[in-house]
Amino acid sequence: MKEEWAWPEDSLDPPDWAEYRSVCRAAAEEAAAYLEHVRTRPAWRPLPPAVLDLPRQELPLAPTPLPAVIEEFRSTVLPYPTGNIHPRFFGWVHGTGLSCGVVAEMYAAAMNANLGGRNHAPVYVERAVLEWCRRIFRFPEGASGLLVSGTSMGTVVALASARNRMIPGDIRQDGLRGARPVAFYASSEVHQSNAKALELLGLGSGCLRRIPVDENFRMRTDALAEAVAADRGAGVLPVCVIGTAGTVNTGAVDDLTALASFCREQGLWFHVDGAFGAMCALNDSLRPRIAGIELADSLAFDFHKWMFVQYGVGCVLVRDGEAQREAFAYRESYLHGKARGAAGGDAWFCDYGPELSRGFLALRVWFAMKEHGLRRLGRVVLRNCLQAEYLRDRIRRHPSLRLLAGDLNVTCFRYVDESLNEEQLDRLNEDVVADLQEMGIAVPSTTRIHGLLAIRAALTNHRTEREDLDLFLDETVRLAKRRLGDMPPQS
Amino acid sequence: MKEEWAWPEDSLDPPDWAEYRSVCRAAAEEAAAYLEHVRTRPAWRPLPPAVLDLPRQELPLAPTPLPAVIEEFRSTVLPYPTGNIHPRFFGWVHGTGLSCGVVAEMYAAAMNANLGGRNHAPVYVERAVLEWCRRIFRFPEGASGLLVSGTSMGTVVALASARNRMIPGDIRQDGLRGARPVAFYASSEVHQSNAKALELLGLGSGCLRRIPVDENFRMRTDALAEAVAADRGAGVLPVCVIGTAGTVNTGAVDDLTALASFCREQGLWFHVDGAFGAMCALNDSLRPRIAGIELADSLAFDFHKWMFVQYGVGCVLVRDGEAQREAFAYRESYLHGKARGAAGGDAWFCDYGPELSRGFLALRVWFAMKEHGLRRLGRVVLRNCLQAEYLRDRIRRHPSLRLLAGDLNVTCFRYVDESLNEEQLDRLNEDVVADLQEMGIAVPSTTRIHGLLAIRAALTNHRTEREDLDLFLDETVRLAKRRLGDMPPQS
Repeated sequence: MKEEWAWPEDSLDPPDWAEYRSVCRAAAEEAAAYLEHVRTRPAWRPLPPAVLDLPRQELPLAPTPLPAVIEEFRSTVLPYPTGNIHPRFFGWVHGTGLSCGVVAEMYAAAMNANLGGRNHAPVYVERAVLEWCRRIFRFPEGASGLLVSGTSMGTVVALASARNRMIPGDIRQDGLRGARPVAFYASSEVHQSNAKALELLGLGSGCLRRIPVDENFRMRTDALAEAVAADRGAGVLPVCVIGTAGTVNTGAVDDLTALASFCREQGLWFHVDGAFGAMCALNDSLRPRIAGIELADSLAFDFHKWMFVQYGVGCVLVRDGEAQREAFAYRESYLHGKARGAAGGDAWFCDYGPELSRGFLALRVWFAMKEHGLRRLGRVVLRNCLQAEYLRDRIRRHPSLRLLAGDLNVTCFRYVDESLNEEQLDRLNEDVVADLQEMGIAVPSTTRIHGLLAIRAALTNHRTEREDLDLFLDETVRLAKRRLGDMPPQS
Repeated sequence: MKEEWAWPEDSLDPPDWAEYRSVCRAAAEEAAAYLEHVRTRPAWRPLPPAVLDLPRQELPLAPTPLPAVIEEFRSTVLPYPTGNIHPRFFGWVHGTGLSCGVVAEMYAAAMNANLGGRNHAPVYVERAVLEWCRRIFRFPEGASGLLVSGTSMGTVVALASARNRMIPGDIRQDGLRGARPVAFYASSEVHQSNAKALELLGLGSGCLRRIPVDENFRMRTDALAEAVAADRGAGVLPVCVIGTAGTVNTGAVDDLTALASFCREQGLWFHVDGAFGAMCALNDSLRPRIAGIELADSLAFDFHKWMFVQYGVGCVLVRDGEAQREAFAYRESYLHGKARGAAGGDAWFCDYGPELSRGFLALRVWFAMKEHGLRRLGRVVLRNCLQAEYLRDRIRRHPSLRLLAGDLNVTCFRYVDESLNEEQLDRLNEDVVADLQEMGIAVPSTTRIHGLLAIRAALTNHRTEREDLDLFLDETVRLAKRRLGDMPPQS
């Protein structure tokens, strides 16, 4: 090379490939052992100062050999996970992750594919996953779909499709400024991500009508009909009903068949938020619980919750694929699909959502579906529901526990003691949950049911066994009693 | 267990942990070897029927042992990547990926953390990455940020913050229906993801004023000032100027200092699309090229392009952290941050973007920054720029090649022959690019420069060496000449 064309020759590849291979082998070995022995570790543990100080470290200007980076990671990060891989993690709605995901992710990292489009095998893996989902949810052949980071983004994609299809005018070009007033409808138990999506889309959360629920936390279709009629009467354009398959608070499922038929009759878009509940489709005895989901105009759900796949990957399906494409398709001059070569292939996924570059999210889903098969995955979903029933049965029979709500895989309850008023019980139960977490015994979360603080256990955990549920309840009672001993008598 | 509480006992954990460990070791070994020997494989290859048929496979109802799943993956997917890990991939703006990313991803898969919030070590890894980015780009201490799937999503987050902060009214609640007409400004070379973000946000791409560029493809600030004045005169509210650090077509960088000062003077939000160009900040001799980036109100960029990190991970920084939080913060009752336990910690990342569940994107970035150090990463960015200069120099000296445009790491050129008119040359060059790809020699892409089809090489590739650039140009010329031999004489 001539002097004038000298450039720095730093390599970002390993200085010694044999050493790198051995580092990879050791890491793989450790990742596997980490999963194998998860039960021997606490479900969660408080963070030591070294973790809290991570963001205060100096800028890493100089290199560090990979083994030393791994060593810091092993001591400072690896021992302090969210906890959701543990058999006694029941908090929020967190999936467990799968052992095959470790393998899938190392291969995906090696390939480093960009799934925005173009013509390469990873694109066909995502198409396979989408096609299987289309068939699982019995969507028609013209349906489209996209893997997304989770249901929140799936909701954005679905509601953007609904917005642009249902609201008169050229929304992509002109925006919403001159649009008619519109309304979306969902139960009062709907997940906040739906309101957040409406905010992002410029529709405003104010257009979301929160329809009252019945005693089982399901949207009241009579109240829905009234709300739609009232809006029409007031000159507001009803656009879309959002049904929920599995509310986050109590696991309730709206009457999706009734909502679908109402939407058809009224000419409304029917979206289903199936973040975890959609997975009932994997089991014949649970499938009736979400009947009507196959009638949705769009459906968003997660693989990382109740299909146990590693974070973050979910899916959106849109019944009329053209609606999704119309909302997002946009090819640059440098991106025009070619007849030949690496730029070929159609359709490109970037035409179905807001992202241009996209990671190989599909591989871990493909591994999960292939290794376990849908029937086995469905049986584990069923097991979580049966385990929740077991939990509710034990709570009902226990004199100091009170069942507040629960359906599907979700159970809300609290410890009760007649010497305390409701407010004192709120504090007691909140403290007990923090005790359970800090002692590493179990990780439930909390919520409010009819204003009362509830201990909430959502089972989307394939590692949970009966002994875990028993220990969780026994320790809840024990810790509550211990705290009661500490508490001053009621004044 | 009582009969009534029997449930299916399928395990999703490996039937034999020792076998699983050995599967993981073998996969790690293969992933490492896959990177080591990438140079011996074609840069891209056409897809055989088995790949195209992946989406036509039957629903995987029954399980398949993990080794058999891996075997199918190894034969059908692994040999057919996008190509961007190869030293002669110069298409679009694709990053190469890093060997440390394989290790990071297997650990991340084992931990399966949810980075939406809560209190666990992965959250502090993301905070570290964000804090380092804040310092790299010299944003003030009150700045906020978020890791996202890429610049497209970063742009959505940034422009949503700008929208809600700058447009009068309660946009989150009321939407844009009653809002004033507004305008955003960017150069005519701006990436389409910015228009797409405006469409998603309900503002409409019609509000994006595409300001003409100068002869170096940089936004003309005089034309910008005229456009803003014209809008004000017409009762339109100017909201935001989008500067580009590295246009996708030619690598041009807008005069960010001038744009920042114009925005301050006019009270406009200044966003910078730094998808790849922002990485010039890592090298002292390139940093002046993006001077002014530190003055932006928001900045979106990718780690998966010019920091070479695995797909898909980018970042958004917002100068006034409150603006980002105001646009997205939204905690459910079941998500209220707690003083103690797993639900503690603040701020939760879900309050800074549209996603609630979030994967552990930060780990591979943290590994990349730590292992290589910012200075070495910056030298590789510089090397790509010097390599592009070398390429342009060779093109300028070659009688049959014509340089059409190029800056930073991007070079646009085409093969020319006086016996062909421009339209015939368009077809010839397009065919040559497909030939190069299909023969696995190299993967450039194409674009249009002043209406002419250009072969475009964007170097965001840490594996590229001089011999790769020479081979690419030599083969381009050879294949063009071969095709010319095939072509009928001009009529």
